[in-house]
Amino acid sequence: KKSTDAAPAPAPAPAPAPAPAPESSVRYLSYAQRAEQCSNEVARKLLAIMESKRTNLCVAADLTTAEEVLRLADAVGPYICVLKTHVDILTDFSPQFVERLVQLAQTHNFLIFEDRKFADIGNTVGMQYGEGVYHIAAWSDITNAHSVAGPGIIDGLKSHIKKHPPSSPRALLMLAQMSSAGNLMSNDAYVSATVSMAEQHPDFVIGFICQQKLSNNPAFLYLTPGVQGGISGDGPQNKGDNLGQQYQTPHRVIYENECDVIIVGRGIYGAADPAGVAALYRNAGWEAYEQRLQKHQMN
Amino acid sequence: KKSTDAAPAPAPAPAPAPAPAPESSVRYLSYAQRAEQCSNEVARKLLAIMESKRTNLCVAADLTTAEEVLRLADAVGPYICVLKTHVDILTDFSPQFVERLVQLAQTHNFLIFEDRKFADIGNTVGMQYGEGVYHIAAWSDITNAHSVAGPGIIDGLKSHIKKHPPSSPRALLMLAQMSSAGNLMSNDAYVSATVSMAEQHPDFVIGFICQQKLSNNPAFLYLTPGVQGGISGDGPQNKGDNLGQQYQTPHRVIYENECDVIIVGRGIYGAADPAGVAALYRNAGWEAYEQRLQKHQMN
Repeated sequence: KKSTDAAPAPAPAPAPAPAPAPESSVRYLSYAQRAEQCSNEVARKLLAIMESKRTNLCVAADLTTAEEVLRLADAVGPYICVLKTHVDILTDFSPQFVERLVQLAQTHNFLIFEDRKFADIGNTVGMQYGEGVYHIAAWSDITNAHSVAGPGIIDGLKSHIKKHPPSSPRALLMLAQMSSAGNLMSNDAYVSATVSMAEQHPDFVIGFICQQKLSNNPAFLYLTPGVQGGISGDGPQNKGDNLGQQYQTPHRVIYENECDVIIVGRGIYGAADPAGVAALYRNAGWEAYEQRLQKHQMN
Repeated sequence: KKSTDAAPAPAPAPAPAPAPAPESSVRYLSYAQRAEQCSNEVARKLLAIMESKRTNLCVAADLTTAEEVLRLADAVGPYICVLKTHVDILTDFSPQFVERLVQLAQTHNFLIFEDRKFADIGNTVGMQYGEGVYHIAAWSDITNAHSVAGPGIIDGLKSHIKKHPPSSPRALLMLAQMSSAGNLMSNDAYVSATVSMAEQHPDFVIGFICQQKLSNNPAFLYLTPGVQGGISGDGPQNKGDNLGQQYQTPHRVIYENECDVIIVGRGIYGAADPAGVAALYRNAGWEAYEQRLQKHQMN
C-alpha cells in the first residue's frame, strides 16, 4: 500500500527472523543464477558453459607454436570453460591458426581469452586491440587490461569495438590482483580503484583477474591464475617458479577465496597427459564450487 | 690519518664553503658527463647521440602501416635521439620492416624503443620479448615494463637476453609515472618501489618513463611522454585527447621537471610537415636543457 492511502496501514506482523543481508544472499547464487544478472552477453555465455559442462577450469596455453596450442586446445577442450592464450609468444602465428582455434572453441564449447594485459593509454590500446598482426578484437571473446594507466584504457578498448563491431560480443577483465611476488597491486586502494573503474562499464567489463572475490555484485566474475596442485589428494601447496610466480590450489581459490574460475598453466600443458590432468583439475574446481554452494546453503 | 695514530691531527684549516651536496652536484652533469656513470652500453650510446646531435627529442611513431612509420623515421631521423614504436599496431608488420627501420636508425644515428609496456609475470614476458611474430629483443635497443607485476618482470626479460644474446646490447625503462588521467601510479609508494626495482639492475634498467626526475643517480635517464605544444612561442598548454591523455610542454618537462628526453607523438606525426615540427621540438627541448644546465651553474 502507498503511504498516501487514507486508511491506516494494519499493524505489522511480528517481525520474522531478519532476511539474510544482500552480501550473504548473493553467495547463494549458482553460476546459472548469476548469468541472469549479467548485462554482457559473453559473461552470460561463459556462466552457461560452466553450468552445462560442470567446469570452472581455464587452461593457460603458454606454448610457443601454433600446433602445440591447437593440440592442447583439442585435448583439454572437453574439460574447460575458457582457453587462455598468449598469441604474442607464438613463433608461427597466422590467420589460419586463429581460424582453427575458433573452430575448436565451437566444437568443444569454450571461450577464448587472449591474456594481453593491455597497459597503455586509451588511444594506444584501442589500436593494439584492433590492429596489428593479431587483430585480437576480431576473434578473442575476452581480453584483459591493467587499471594502472587509468580508466581511459577501458574507454579506448570500448571505443574500438564501437567503431568496428566484431562478429560476436566482446568482454574485458580488469587485473585487480596478481599472483607474482612483490607486485604493486597488493593494497586496498589499488583494488578498490580497479573495482570502481569496472563498475562504470557493466556492458563491457565482466569481472577481474584476482586472488579473491572483490565485490557483492553477482554479475562480476573472478578468474584466478597461478593455480597448481591440490588435485587427486596431493594436498595444498604453495610452490613457485624462479621468476616470482606463486601457486595456490583449486580448493583455496574456489572454496576459501570464493573466486569463480581457476586458471591452470604449467600444471596442465607441462604434464605428460594434459587431458587427464585437466580432468582432475576440472573435478577439483567443480567439487570446491559445490562445497561452497553447500556451505552457504547450510548457513 | 686514521684515528689510531698517536700524534694528534693538526687543527683543520678554516672550513671552505661547503662542497655542494651530492644531489645538487649531480645536476651539474651534462648528458655527456652522465654517460660515464652508466654501466649499460645502450644508455652510454643514447647520451652520446644526444650530445652529438644536440637533441633530446624522441618521436612516437603511432602509425598503423609500415610505410608510414618508415617515412616518418626518415623524415624526423636527423632531429631525434630515439624513435618510439608500437609495432603491434601495424597492419602490415614484416621482418623487412624491421630491417629497413634498423637501417634508418643507423643512417640517422638514433635508437629504437619498442614501447611494449610489458606487464605480466617473468616467465611470460621473457617469451613475449623474444618470441612471437615481433621478436622485439632481436631489434629494439630499448623496451619498457610496468613495475606493477613485481620485480620478476625484470628477471624474466633479462633471463631471455642472457639465454639468447642479441647482436647488440639491450636496455629497459621502467614505467614509474604515466601521463594519462586517473592512473594509479600517482603515489610515492608506487614510484619508490619502481625506483628500487630499477636500482637492483643497473646493467639493464637505464631509467624511467616518468613525469619528473626521480633519483639522484646520474646514470638514470628520464623519458617523458605526453609532450605537445610549447614550441615556436605558442606558450604552455595542458590539453588532452578524449581518452584521458594529458599534455605538457618541452620546457616544463626538461627545465622544470628535470627529465631528459621529451616524447612527442601526435604533435609531430599528425603535423603536415613532421620534419619541420620535429626540428622545432628538438630546438625547444635542447634550449630547455641548456637553460637547466645554466640554472645549476649559476646556483
